Amino acid sequence: MDGKIPRDAQDDHTAAMAQRRRDFVQQHTGVTLDHVGRCSIDPATLPGNIENFIGAAQVPIGLAGPLRIDGEHARGDFYVPLATTEGTLVASYNRGMRLLTECGGVKTTVVEHRMQRSPVFMFDDALAAREFGHWVDAHLAEIARVAEATTRIGKLTSIYQYAVGPLRHLRFNYTTGDAAGQNMTGKATLAACEWIAEQYPGGAKYLLSGNMDTDKKHSQVNTLVTRGKRVVAEAVIRQEALKRLMGVDTAEMFAMRQVSNTGAMLAGSANNGSHAANGLAALFIATGQDAANVAESHAGVVYSQLLAGGDYYWSITLTSLIVGTVGGGTGLATQRECLEMLGCHGNGRADKFAEICAGVVLAGETSLSGAVLHGDWVSSHDRYGRNRP
Amino acid sequence: MDGKIPRDAQDDHTAAMAQRRRDFVQQHTGVTLDHVGRCSIDPATLPGNIENFIGAAQVPIGLAGPLRIDGEHARGDFYVPLATTEGTLVASYNRGMRLLTECGGVKTTVVEHRMQRSPVFMFDDALAAREFGHWVDAHLAEIARVAEATTRIGKLTSIYQYAVGPLRHLRFNYTTGDAAGQNMTGKATLAACEWIAEQYPGGAKYLLSGNMDTDKKHSQVNTLVTRGKRVVAEAVIRQEALKRLMGVDTAEMFAMRQVSNTGAMLAGSANNGSHAANGLAALFIATGQDAANVAESHAGVVYSQLLAGGDYYWSITLTSLIVGTVGGGTGLATQRECLEMLGCHGNGRADKFAEICAGVVLAGETSLSGAVLHGDWVSSHDRYGRNRP
Amino acid sequence: MDGKIPRDAQDDHTAAMAQRRRDFVQQHTGVTLDHVGRCSIDPATLPGNIENFIGAAQVPIGLAGPLRIDGEHARGDFYVPLATTEGTLVASYNRGMRLLTECGGVKTTVVEHRMQRSPVFMFDDALAAREFGHWVDAHLAEIARVAEATTRIGKLTSIYQYAVGPLRHLRFNYTTGDAAGQNMTGKATLAACEWIAEQYPGGAKYLLSGNMDTDKKHSQVNTLVTRGKRVVAEAVIRQEALKRLMGVDTAEMFAMRQVSNTGAMLAGSANNGSHAANGLAALFIATGQDAANVAESHAGVVYSQLLAGGDYYWSITLTSLIVGTVGGGTGLATQRECLEMLGCHGNGRADKFAEICAGVVLAGETSLSGAVLHGDWVSSHDRYGRNRP
Amino acid sequence: MDGKIPRDAQDDHTAAMAQRRRDFVQQHTGVTLDHVGRCSIDPATLPGNIENFIGAAQVPIGLAGPLRIDGEHARGDFYVPLATTEGTLVASYNRGMRLLTECGGVKTTVVEHRMQRSPVFMFDDALAAREFGHWVDAHLAEIARVAEATTRIGKLTSIYQYAVGPLRHLRFNYTTGDAAGQNMTGKATLAACEWIAEQYPGGAKYLLSGNMDTDKKHSQVNTLVTRGKRVVAEAVIRQEALKRLMGVDTAEMFAMRQVSNTGAMLAGSANNGSHAANGLAALFIATGQDAANVAESHAGVVYSQLLAGGDYYWSITLTSLIVGTVGGGTGLATQRECLEMLGCHGNGRADKFAEICAGVVLAGETSLSGAVLHGDWVSSHDRYGRNRP
Repeated sequence: MDGKIPRDAQDDHTAAMAQRRRDFVQQHTGVTLDHVGRCSIDPATLPGNIENFIGAAQVPIGLAGPLRIDGEHARGDFYVPLATTEGTLVASYNRGMRLLTECGGVKTTVVEHRMQRSPVFMFDDALAAREFGHWVDAHLAEIARVAEATTRIGKLTSIYQYAVGPLRHLRFNYTTGDAAGQNMTGKATLAACEWIAEQYPGGAKYLLSGNMDTDKKHSQVNTLVTRGKRVVAEAVIRQEALKRLMGVDTAEMFAMRQVSNTGAMLAGSANNGSHAANGLAALFIATGQDAANVAESHAGVVYSQLLAGGDYYWSITLTSLIVGTVGGGTGLATQRECLEMLGCHGNGRADKFAEICAGVVLAGETSLSGAVLHGDWVSSHDRYGRNRP
Repeated sequence: MDGKIPRDAQDDHTAAMAQRRRDFVQQHTGVTLDHVGRCSIDPATLPGNIENFIGAAQVPIGLAGPLRIDGEHARGDFYVPLATTEGTLVASYNRGMRLLTECGGVKTTVVEHRMQRSPVFMFDDALAAREFGHWVDAHLAEIARVAEATTRIGKLTSIYQYAVGPLRHLRFNYTTGDAAGQNMTGKATLAACEWIAEQYPGGAKYLLSGNMDTDKKHSQVNTLVTRGKRVVAEAVIRQEALKRLMGVDTAEMFAMRQVSNTGAMLAGSANNGSHAANGLAALFIATGQDAANVAESHAGVVYSQLLAGGDYYWSITLTSLIVGTVGGGTGLATQRECLEMLGCHGNGRADKFAEICAGVVLAGETSLSGAVLHGDWVSSHDRYGRNRP
Repeated sequence: MDGKIPRDAQDDHTAAMAQRRRDFVQQHTGVTLDHVGRCSIDPATLPGNIENFIGAAQVPIGLAGPLRIDGEHARGDFYVPLATTEGTLVASYNRGMRLLTECGGVKTTVVEHRMQRSPVFMFDDALAAREFGHWVDAHLAEIARVAEATTRIGKLTSIYQYAVGPLRHLRFNYTTGDAAGQNMTGKATLAACEWIAEQYPGGAKYLLSGNMDTDKKHSQVNTLVTRGKRVVAEAVIRQEALKRLMGVDTAEMFAMRQVSNTGAMLAGSANNGSHAANGLAALFIATGQDAANVAESHAGVVYSQLLAGGDYYWSITLTSLIVGTVGGGTGLATQRECLEMLGCHGNGRADKFAEICAGVVLAGETSLSGAVLHGDWVSSHDRYGRNRP
Repeated sequence: MDGKIPRDAQDDHTAAMAQRRRDFVQQHTGVTLDHVGRCSIDPATLPGNIENFIGAAQVPIGLAGPLRIDGEHARGDFYVPLATTEGTLVASYNRGMRLLTECGGVKTTVVEHRMQRSPVFMFDDALAAREFGHWVDAHLAEIARVAEATTRIGKLTSIYQYAVGPLRHLRFNYTTGDAAGQNMTGKATLAACEWIAEQYPGGAKYLLSGNMDTDKKHSQVNTLVTRGKRVVAEAVIRQEALKRLMGVDTAEMFAMRQVSNTGAMLAGSANNGSHAANGLAALFIATGQDAANVAESHAGVVYSQLLAGGDYYWSITLTSLIVGTVGGGTGLATQRECLEMLGCHGNGRADKFAEICAGVVLAGETSLSGAVLHGDWVSSHDRYGRNRP
């Protein structure tokens, strides 16, 4: 087959094979992948990260900060690498970081950690499914033992059950240490399901996912009961600082919050805040997170109050933040450097990194809200985003 | 201020300034950004894409294909660059592309194109807001003229109105040519709002966004009335091919679809399919799209039917696909090469690129569904994703 | 067949047939329907309202008011009949009405009126469905003519289109005069669909409902683009009056609103207010509305602001209020009396009645919120709801 | 105050006071409440059900059945009283009951029972809220003891926690015996909250509802984790019977299900079925349930499969069915008779009644779906709903 992509069954992660595939692209499309090929990644480091490797996308990184964080795990002033091609983004987050830092910093807290795999078991009728559900509850300890035997790190903390007709959706919740954990939980849940299918009197038929995980998808169930980490960033914005740095009043900001809430409610929005996805996508790409998880991670709930003296309490809760500091792309060349800049590479750092993510998001919320309210949103994009058509 | 990031007010997009900031990072964090600095991007190309540039994230690209597409704009066999750090992803999409190609290819259609900015106008009471709404309807042509005066490309096609209390949320819908168009629509809508505020008898107070755009956020309103492009990919999966390539029956696949739908419905999911975000994020990073738009773009609706002879009609509708082939990151070095591989760089290519995105997504749907049904989902990740903790 | 319910094919709406069916119930279940049979309804008035008539449910009506309304259509002080079996409900709404009335009354506005039927047309592929959509847009005037030929009252105001795969969901929007209008729109849309199927080149296959109406169901699409009437009730609650009548401060009430919004957002709730369904169900039963429409009608959005002087602007927007003052149960004996009490029986009264509904709902919101905040919610139920188990 | 509704502080539930209030209405509105006054309810039975009693709404009841139910609690053939003013409703449900009965009956199962009250506790920051959450988990047994001390029947089975910012929403789940249980759980939760506020080190501020209950409102959280009873009705529709009774094929019905699912998904609908609210509202009014709970109760998930031989498995899961057979309106004159017809009055009958509700709903689903598919939906309303405008 002429059009088949070249692949070396023995050792495919080599510079030679990458070159051979770039040549193949050149033959089939006429395009020379000069820049794509000019990466500093050692292909030998890539098994487990990519197949049919041909080079790398180079995504520009801008530096923002310092952002003062007063968290449980992240404490101090951070400089944040943001990989993006969207002009204004770095400048805007930078401005928000300055506001937060001048107001004493952002407080951050990881309040939950639950990664899922959600198999569905299928029975003849609802009664059989219900009885199965009781059996699962009664055998939770054994199921956990079987699941956890597949992993050094993952712990099965609970199984949520959702009944529909003759089906029993199970949502296995795990802690996954410093890894994002989707594969870990997949493997553990498979082992658990196989054990259940074997042990359950009369047997049990299942699918490893019944679409309630909900992997790489926003969902209300994630918002409710967390996927990955649930992290809160909160700050008290001083009236004077907001006025000085962004030209707006806290009372106006709070009045605007009432309006934004109606927009979110009417729209059925995943987030009643402004643009969490911007900061998260940029941080995710810089630090080797799975950018597809922006789908889940951008969900959030803003809660704020105007304080008696005129200062403004502002919080955002990211309900489904999926991050890791080991595994995935975290060990690759540029990604590792970016994690290290934040003191977040390797074991014992995932909560710290999650807190930084939340702090960055809140910074972005303040800056964009300020721009919308003050009316300089478009003009700043004109200044920073000149190459737009 | 010692901790302030260095910045050259005259010309900040230079190799020297990037180096100076990397040195600054090294001083403040102790981390040397060797790999981050080793990019082939010319800093002089970056104004409009990044501020405080320090280098680039290198995201590995894998090659998948060929994918046969039978669209209006995309026609032929395509090799697809996917930038990701998630093992198995390229292999899985590749498998799905083979299935679709062997079944005669995937049919793709862009059915709508609407990019938004959604200001909110605020009045004393609901009656005043309603009257304003009528006025806007009556002045649509003039509003369009004012909005369109700010852009060579954008066209205002409609303004949707949503009333709540004394507020009138307006959702301006534009076509934006081959650009994603968020900035273009922001600027045009600002001009329109200023004109409205001036012309409306008695004046009108507004915010440029009332949170109904819903920019960088999934929302039901996007699913309903489109944000960006609404694109359908559809294919008839032959029973024999599915069995041979993935080891499963079309009837089982259809039965599983009934189950997956319940999971999506219970979860309140943005997509009743499997993992659109995976393919989209990888394509977006490779081709200079805004990865934050994965938040909106991953939403979708799967609709399928088992055909009389046993073949399986499978469609996915991406309701909010935000892509461009000009502007944003599309002109950067590696990104441009990847777009060119697909014949999608520059003017007149955005619909083609949107169709390719949808085709890729459907390929991924078939492969993951097949893996879940066949039971080799975890084992394939074990094979391809060895570096997991 | 012995178990078959007796029915007179000639004239089934008679006292004799009702008695015969009550006897039948007595024979089959042993239960004598004494009270059910003791109604004052003339069976001859019931064709079109009920089949297999056996008598009536007697639902107690309590009187609340006066409620001062300052609407477009409803103006003055109203006494409101509320049919319920839930203790405290009438007392609570009564308290809210007093608050609103003492604060100068509630302002009410009907901002939209759209009743739907939503057929779906099915094609071979997405392209064919898209072309069909354009054809529908181009033939809107003719479609309206055909649809409106079936009714003296209904007017087709627009057809919204929603594309998914090879399907085209059409949402026909009508004004329906003073009727709720579900049957009217069903009939008109059937005629339109038959005409379309005949006229469309190559023909077109359809179902009269593709489930996007969404009849007798809450949905986000109703919240967005209205089903029935979109009605706003708004009031400025004076600080002094709230304190005196409910013992709470407006500032506390506003702070509580921030909290309630998070609950609604997390829960994915149809209404970020308190209990619109209570007042609506009671009014609907009393006045011959279709109580099943509580499903749609209870949806709403609360928007409020604390005013500079400490007074509290409070609005609720009912997005899908389905009511009529002609047709349905509005002409029945007790129902008509209750509508007449409100000056709302017959033609030209539906907007007035809708405004009253919204005003009643806002009254209930203030009272329950006050009770939750003040802490007398449970004690009042203990006082008024003594018969609870 | 002249306009004040007359009320007897000593004994207000008398025929005389009802008459006096009807006279008051006559004076103020000119309307004589003849029919409203002609009810057979003894006012002395009404304390706990109504305040300011003036009479009763008479809602016509039609008889449907027999419906064969093969449940855990409901077994046998049932005749069902449906109180409605909507022509065709009884006839349509009746037709569906015949189909189900001829197919061997409907299988019904109550799979969960959880009634809620959801207070919210408010702290200074997210960390304090998280610590509080752990404390609640650790004191669950004591909290249950305190809550259950207020009720003979209610049992606290779990407390779900939802974190947002410095708030901790708690969703107390109870079983409530044969009562719907909203007041019972309100009272129990108030006691629990008072105890918590007292016991928690440093104290804790709360609101008895943070809007996550979500009382009298549809919500996704109800769909996920149940409010009231989660009940499944399922049946195997024989191909021959469907064809004979409704003129349609099972394969067409299944194909239509795929289409209806897309409508529900696009619309963001509370139910992917047809019109559960119709049957439920009619049953609720007839049997003294709280009709406002149609808001929650109408939510549901349809799951179906076409079986190998051509028969059609059809299930609907009502996720939030709120019913009782004691308390509320269940003891009133006509309501009690209707419950007795079903063998459902009093203790030990709530699960049976819930099963009947679900069975009735499924009957209605089959009939309406058949009518839409067969095309006689409108014509049947023309026949049965003649009094429409």
